[in-house]
Amino acid sequence: MKAEIISIGSELLLGQIVNTDAQYLSKQLAQMGIDIYYHTVIGDNKDRLLEALNLASQRSDIIITTGGLGPTMDDITKQTIAEFLGVDMELDKKSLDSIRRYFEKRNRPMPDENIRQALFPKGSQILPNDCGTAPGAIIEANELIYIILPGPPHELAHMFDIHVSPYLIKYSNETIYSRVLKIYGMGESAVEEEIKDLIANQHNPTIAPLASQGEVSLRITAKVDKYTNPEKFIAPVEQEIRNRLGNFIYGVNDQTLEEVVVEQLSKKKKTIAVAESCTGGLITNLLTNVPGASQVIMESFITYSNEAKMRRLNVKKTTLDKWGAVSRQTAQEMLDGLIKVTSSDIGVAVTGIAGPDGGTPDKPVGLVYIAVGSLHSADIREYHFTGNRLRIKQLTAKAALNMVRWQLNSSH
Amino acid sequence: MKAEIISIGSELLLGQIVNTDAQYLSKQLAQMGIDIYYHTVIGDNKDRLLEALNLASQRSDIIITTGGLGPTMDDITKQTIAEFLGVDMELDKKSLDSIRRYFEKRNRPMPDENIRQALFPKGSQILPNDCGTAPGAIIEANELIYIILPGPPHELAHMFDIHVSPYLIKYSNETIYSRVLKIYGMGESAVEEEIKDLIANQHNPTIAPLASQGEVSLRITAKVDKYTNPEKFIAPVEQEIRNRLGNFIYGVNDQTLEEVVVEQLSKKKKTIAVAESCTGGLITNLLTNVPGASQVIMESFITYSNEAKMRRLNVKKTTLDKWGAVSRQTAQEMLDGLIKVTSSDIGVAVTGIAGPDGGTPDKPVGLVYIAVGSLHSADIREYHFTGNRLRIKQLTAKAALNMVRWQLNSSH
Repeated sequence: MKAEIISIGSELLLGQIVNTDAQYLSKQLAQMGIDIYYHTVIGDNKDRLLEALNLASQRSDIIITTGGLGPTMDDITKQTIAEFLGVDMELDKKSLDSIRRYFEKRNRPMPDENIRQALFPKGSQILPNDCGTAPGAIIEANELIYIILPGPPHELAHMFDIHVSPYLIKYSNETIYSRVLKIYGMGESAVEEEIKDLIANQHNPTIAPLASQGEVSLRITAKVDKYTNPEKFIAPVEQEIRNRLGNFIYGVNDQTLEEVVVEQLSKKKKTIAVAESCTGGLITNLLTNVPGASQVIMESFITYSNEAKMRRLNVKKTTLDKWGAVSRQTAQEMLDGLIKVTSSDIGVAVTGIAGPDGGTPDKPVGLVYIAVGSLHSADIREYHFTGNRLRIKQLTAKAALNMVRWQLNSSH
Repeated sequence: MKAEIISIGSELLLGQIVNTDAQYLSKQLAQMGIDIYYHTVIGDNKDRLLEALNLASQRSDIIITTGGLGPTMDDITKQTIAEFLGVDMELDKKSLDSIRRYFEKRNRPMPDENIRQALFPKGSQILPNDCGTAPGAIIEANELIYIILPGPPHELAHMFDIHVSPYLIKYSNETIYSRVLKIYGMGESAVEEEIKDLIANQHNPTIAPLASQGEVSLRITAKVDKYTNPEKFIAPVEQEIRNRLGNFIYGVNDQTLEEVVVEQLSKKKKTIAVAESCTGGLITNLLTNVPGASQVIMESFITYSNEAKMRRLNVKKTTLDKWGAVSRQTAQEMLDGLIKVTSSDIGVAVTGIAGPDGGTPDKPVGLVYIAVGSLHSADIREYHFTGNRLRIKQLTAKAALNMVRWQLNSSH
């Protein structure tokens, strides 16, 4: 089956929004083994939509439209498809009721315009919209399948998952199955060097590296028929990569460093506290994004000024005077103070220069010291990050979380 | 001039990346008054690229391709355009030199494959790539303009800004100029209600509301010829909207609440400190994202546990026992303690339930108390946010920053 996506909306052509709908659908269809050959974006214009439908109907089996289902005169998708197929529009009573209920729930009268959202090309199978007012539809006509979906990304995703995916599954013989291995602490070229023979000989599964925000991901993708367990293909390759990259692999798929750290801390029943200077709360913010973080983190200090470092963490004035706030010595004392003051099992202290100001020739923007340890041991590292203020904060937070991960792995 | 964008890359059709290139170019071209009528995405496939070029050449004046300029055999954009135009490929010596230098700088030998990146259809004006190895090109042929750009978003954006925009400006007679007014504290429908007559009568400029992440933006867009100052159109409409929405408008264009707050604090030479519970450092993280934040924020406390609230901020045990950690009373005591302990001019204290666990019928997930004040006055508000953990943290941080903004506006 060949599929293509036609997205309708002038806001896409004006660059006001990015076409995440096309990405979402492509990803889902790829996983079902349905190939997408084209994305097309056009404005809210009947002639150009007719032209796009005409072209698509000559080259694809499944045509998915996104957008243009709103209540206003600008929203032309359904009427234009009806015209293209030579069928009339019909009112769907059930849809009208559910649109009315949508407004009732919000204590607002339904504007007359919204009646348009309950009109469909004759022969439509209606797809209810559980997140908004615009239902979608599936039309089988002339040996083609037309799938009409709303534009707002969360409405589209929900409708696809609940209603379209079960419908399409019968057309899918193959499945594409991916696992992403997430790597921290090795650059993209170093990763590629380690596994270049695997990449050179790849066939099924394929291995694709991707570098982003200081991390590297390896995507292992297997294509199997729907009766075969994809693990048969994925598992041996994953194992071989794990043998070579070892502990540089911190997680799989959507896992984040902070999730892995919170999980490890929970398992080991250990607590953590953070003394943040240049990261300004980012590390603790990431940790507390993970549900259940309150079991492992009781408190943190954001000691931005020298005064705060002295008062909260007992950093010595002589240390700050002699070595400066951004120094190995200050990081060490921040950590020591943090552990004493909080009685946490593990402490993290960071101090650095996030820029754009505050750098000197000796201590340039991007210089960061991170100390991770407990009462008995401390690991202190010097980093030189590049990029703007936000990127330096991000890279510092990741490096710190990864140091915690290593520390937890090496302790028992 | 009609333009269209053809993006080439199987990773787009597989949904591995989203087509931000098309958005970026659309936005820039719209601002130059050049209309985009189509985006098309195809895979790394010569026949489908030829077909797309053929179609585009019949309906557009400017054809912009993105992607497919890498060094591998998969990267077919330039060769296919040469074939389409019936011209040969030529080596550009200058490009080859600069690709060599790119590798030399990184102490890596240039792979032979990269020579392909210095080959161009005959007649190309070369566009240097200051951020990567793949140069772009402009070809004027058969009264059409072909603009060939690399896929990586930062390479494309830089090349467009530096080389393509100055080239295209001569084809642009009109300019589209936008100003975005950023609004916090009013819902989208309330904003629309206030200005519905302006929206109903809009022509030039147009006014478009957009709601996102608890905020509303109003985009005022004027279309003017290049000799007219767009302010003539924008300023009176902006003033009228400001008269109606007043202090609900916190900023313009890309300004954030945290930028506005840091700017106001700097101007008034006041300091701020934050006591964060459910936000886990997010508020201070946002404030310290703003360059110069170190002048106004010395420290913050992340007091996640009851123990930390008592030890760091002197919240009374009886208060926690009687009213709970998530209560108006605890927020008040967190604020009082924070001001006393830090001597900051302004304090912010937040306590709430970010979920997914920890909610009760009395105190559901999303219940948040925010206290903002100084030694002399405190404003404490109760909020009920919905959404997942991250969204509740985000909405809480924004509400807190906006309370600080109001406080700073009302103080002199």
